[in-house]
Amino acid sequence: MEQQNDLQEKTVTTKQIFSGKVIQVQIDEVLLPNGKTSTREIVRHPGAVAVLPLTADGKMIVVRQFRKPLERTIVEIPAGKLEKGEDPLVCAHRELEEETGYQADSMEHLSSFYTSPGFADEILHLYIATGLRPGPARPDEDEFVETMAITLAEAKNLHQQGEIRDAKTVLALFAWENRVLQQRD
Amino acid sequence: MEQQNDLQEKTVTTKQIFSGKVIQVQIDEVLLPNGKTSTREIVRHPGAVAVLPLTADGKMIVVRQFRKPLERTIVEIPAGKLEKGEDPLVCAHRELEEETGYQADSMEHLSSFYTSPGFADEILHLYIATGLRPGPARPDEDEFVETMAITLAEAKNLHQQGEIRDAKTVLALFAWENRVLQQRD
Repeated sequence: MEQQNDLQEKTVTTKQIFSGKVIQVQIDEVLLPNGKTSTREIVRHPGAVAVLPLTADGKMIVVRQFRKPLERTIVEIPAGKLEKGEDPLVCAHRELEEETGYQADSMEHLSSFYTSPGFADEILHLYIATGLRPGPARPDEDEFVETMAITLAEAKNLHQQGEIRDAKTVLALFAWENRVLQQRD
Repeated sequence: MEQQNDLQEKTVTTKQIFSGKVIQVQIDEVLLPNGKTSTREIVRHPGAVAVLPLTADGKMIVVRQFRKPLERTIVEIPAGKLEKGEDPLVCAHRELEEETGYQADSMEHLSSFYTSPGFADEILHLYIATGLRPGPARPDEDEFVETMAITLAEAKNLHQQGEIRDAKTVLALFAWENRVLQQRD
């Protein structure tokens, strides 16, 4: 399908607002397709990976983690930010091992998607990890997580209860269920 | 499952960085579970809804839209920000009609999830709309979209090609495929 250039918003001015250790914020004044102008508030992010780790006995490895923006703990699949220039596949192996201790024999790319394209450029690369071998976790010094292995039924229950409620983990859950349903066919 | 308070990060100081028309940005200094301090860069967002509109003949209604943070057009399910105090269900009906012209007889809640809990508090409420009746679209004055009706196979193809590549739409795609697979059982 061809790109529709008549939907494009051309940049008139860019104003840097904030440059932090993780995100950068800018305001762009844009020229709209109808010739008028508007502003766009944009968050720049280095991108990240997430891993759906599936054990041989049909469980998913998840981590419980406190998320300051939400002021609560939630249960998520392992994930982490890309380091500058890092290959997403290398990052996926690294983050899985750092957060959970597991090493994966197989890391299959499932999808790459923008988490919030209305205001942020964060892209998340999602992998399915299998052939898992346990080992010691090595979280970052400001990272505190608890690891659990849960079945699909338990994961769906945690989703119902609102303990699993971030986009990448809900997406991974639907993708996992999809696999299970297709394997039954 | 009980909340694990020993993972909590307590706020030491909060510094407001930016207050825009859509997002607000703050830096929190936090006390970590190990007694050390760190900083968290946090984006506040009003929250949003997204709608997976399914037609009686098995198609999904999507919109092609230019996304300034990505500098490209992508194909997404209809979505939009919550107005202050707005009921997500009311917002879902409103956004579906504004962006695509369709009115829905049924709007079923599928999931609510945080799009990027590492740095943002944006929550997205996802609904499945059925019983669709076409009508005229009424997009916002700075919103330019093209509406399409596509099959599941076409949607999976657009995902493969990278035209569908935002979290909510990929998630909706897996949820839709699950429904189709389960209805075959």
